[in-house]
Amino acid sequence: MPTVTILTTGYEVLRGFTANTNATWLARRATESGARVVGMRTVGDSLAELTRGLEESLAEAACVLVTGGLGPTEDDRTREALAKVAGVPLVDDPRAWEMVRVHFERSKRAPSPTQRRQGLVPRGFEALPNEQGTAPGITGRVGDRRVFLLPGPPREMTAMFEREVLPRWKQDGGFDEAAARVLWTAGVPESEIAAPIETEMRADEPTVGTHPDDGEVAVRILARGGGAAARADALRDGIARRLGPHVVSTVEHERVQHAVVGLLKDRGLVITTAESITGGLVSRMLVEVAGASTVFRGGHVTYSDEWKSRVLGVPEALIARDGAVSESVAIAMADRARELGRADVAVSTTGYAGPSANPGEVPGPVFVAVSSRFAPTYAVRFFAAVPRLAVQRRAAVLALDQVRRLLIRA
Amino acid sequence: MPTVTILTTGYEVLRGFTANTNATWLARRATESGARVVGMRTVGDSLAELTRGLEESLAEAACVLVTGGLGPTEDDRTREALAKVAGVPLVDDPRAWEMVRVHFERSKRAPSPTQRRQGLVPRGFEALPNEQGTAPGITGRVGDRRVFLLPGPPREMTAMFEREVLPRWKQDGGFDEAAARVLWTAGVPESEIAAPIETEMRADEPTVGTHPDDGEVAVRILARGGGAAARADALRDGIARRLGPHVVSTVEHERVQHAVVGLLKDRGLVITTAESITGGLVSRMLVEVAGASTVFRGGHVTYSDEWKSRVLGVPEALIARDGAVSESVAIAMADRARELGRADVAVSTTGYAGPSANPGEVPGPVFVAVSSRFAPTYAVRFFAAVPRLAVQRRAAVLALDQVRRLLIRA
Repeated sequence: MPTVTILTTGYEVLRGFTANTNATWLARRATESGARVVGMRTVGDSLAELTRGLEESLAEAACVLVTGGLGPTEDDRTREALAKVAGVPLVDDPRAWEMVRVHFERSKRAPSPTQRRQGLVPRGFEALPNEQGTAPGITGRVGDRRVFLLPGPPREMTAMFEREVLPRWKQDGGFDEAAARVLWTAGVPESEIAAPIETEMRADEPTVGTHPDDGEVAVRILARGGGAAARADALRDGIARRLGPHVVSTVEHERVQHAVVGLLKDRGLVITTAESITGGLVSRMLVEVAGASTVFRGGHVTYSDEWKSRVLGVPEALIARDGAVSESVAIAMADRARELGRADVAVSTTGYAGPSANPGEVPGPVFVAVSSRFAPTYAVRFFAAVPRLAVQRRAAVLALDQVRRLLIRA
Repeated sequence: MPTVTILTTGYEVLRGFTANTNATWLARRATESGARVVGMRTVGDSLAELTRGLEESLAEAACVLVTGGLGPTEDDRTREALAKVAGVPLVDDPRAWEMVRVHFERSKRAPSPTQRRQGLVPRGFEALPNEQGTAPGITGRVGDRRVFLLPGPPREMTAMFEREVLPRWKQDGGFDEAAARVLWTAGVPESEIAAPIETEMRADEPTVGTHPDDGEVAVRILARGGGAAARADALRDGIARRLGPHVVSTVEHERVQHAVVGLLKDRGLVITTAESITGGLVSRMLVEVAGASTVFRGGHVTYSDEWKSRVLGVPEALIARDGAVSESVAIAMADRARELGRADVAVSTTGYAGPSANPGEVPGPVFVAVSSRFAPTYAVRFFAAVPRLAVQRRAAVLALDQVRRLLIRA
């Protein structure tokens, strides 16, 4: 299996002013495509640093993916560093210049004189078209190593990886068959997801790992070698059966909100929200899903006792008796929201997100209630000793997950 | 100025399954503390990879910060790699074991037998207490290089950096004075922020850069050497004057929502929301701010025409005449929300987030309206050729920014 290393360039990454999302994305796509990523490096924008970074990377892996430093300014010296390391001059490349020219023509602007730099390519290397921006990529060989220079802007970089890097990898050959699969889970902690799949997680092939991400947990499967796809699928299906209702989706970009919108759509149901602690996050997550308007028409953010009673119609006496953060108020919020919103399902949240005035005091509790015509309205409760934003996020995930669990039973 | 390099360990990062937030955080804090970060590396969890990563890192910088691989399992081999590279044995360290023991005592659990590994330290190295978890850190020297091994979980790592690494850096000496400052801006594109500060951005010292982040733009200042703090402050104040109302905050974690909540609090005002395209994101951003309940009591998410008219009271005839995505409907939404919500200020959003059924069609327009007793209700409009989530995010930032601009004028 070919080894790959990823070289990120730029002082803004080195100073921690910009997160290195490019390297993470490339690493995942390279892994899924059958490469073994053996290293990641970040270096500054100077010619000396770029040269050293390239040399170290070339010593490490059969293929080097470089991002950044292909712009038109004097700070953009990745091309120059590659020419130096390859021991060839930088030359005007008519194909590269044509790519730059066409891009400007399309956007009805004129290239600046410095843009000429973007037409330069190390002799013997090949320019790669950039569908999303001005800077052409560059590929070629240094000895027996394959190098790709990709632009820094993520949209340009990802498109060029898919259109230019992957086909050349296929052509170069030597890549193992590989298949990556994911199962997103929600509503239970990582330890409960890991326990029933312990044996699979200890195996060397395929590899299985659990990865917590913002209140949900991903189970990632990576199979390599002959029949990878079939083995990965079989393993995913087996794990899905074992984890049962905890599994939210088996698609990379689909999380609990996509599952909820999908289930509602399938059944022709409409949902509404009454949010206190989550302050709009539940409805915001629903509308992240394209086409959410078929199942979500509106919701209430009731962040004060007054809004809970005056706008939503929760009895003032109930709030006075049990407090706004209580099972009974969560249930009344969900019931009232469903009625007011003329919806089939309503979900409510109430709780303390902190920070507390008393240091050391744990935020919480949080109550989430679901009202529907499928089951008596009920509430669940949790504590989380995590910062304010994380409590709100967990409450929203829990709320949507409770709706999901109700719908798969209904 | 001492050079620092950051070594991240773990297959989950190398495979792109986990973003390397630790390296970004460490790089920023090290830079702000007067270090020059010259490199970042990620390697796998095997002893061979860890050893090679450590060796390369030690060759590169005076101080190496390593994260991960300090857990109690067989996969946690960072201690072992350090001992190997330093040419000393791993030995039982009574101080380290005491730290593990005390941590378990505090959480009323018993350490597992494998936890014994966490009491091992390369001979001649020092264990560092972990306030947030079980794994002690480790520090010491390899030749003239300083090494810190820090735990992988971000909460443990950041706390240990502040409490253990920084004081030792101060003690070791040689660090330049350094000062980092930030100005967060909102409501205008990066190019408009950069134009009036071009000269400052070309200077070598202090350095000034613009960094777009999720619909807002940070201007970052980094001063080094004698009088860094005073020079950074003067530069920040000068830039703040030049950028005027575009500046939202000069505090790292305070963005447009913090500015809005702060301005409302200062003036004793209450805000409410009527959100269509943003689907709850505006109110969710408000409640991200601790203490938001003093200025925000509730809001409406009106994602359908029916909710806009039936719940909010926007005239059906107006929606029929101008369409739900129109200046007049945005204005009516804000006015009705202010009245219903008994608030001093109301902000509304309406628009198309896409994706469009017609490929190539740009989402938009988006209208944002602000109703208050300080000015006639008005709406602003924008187009953004960006994906669904980014349109929603920009609309929410624009909405809050319009409120902010109104309040600083009022």
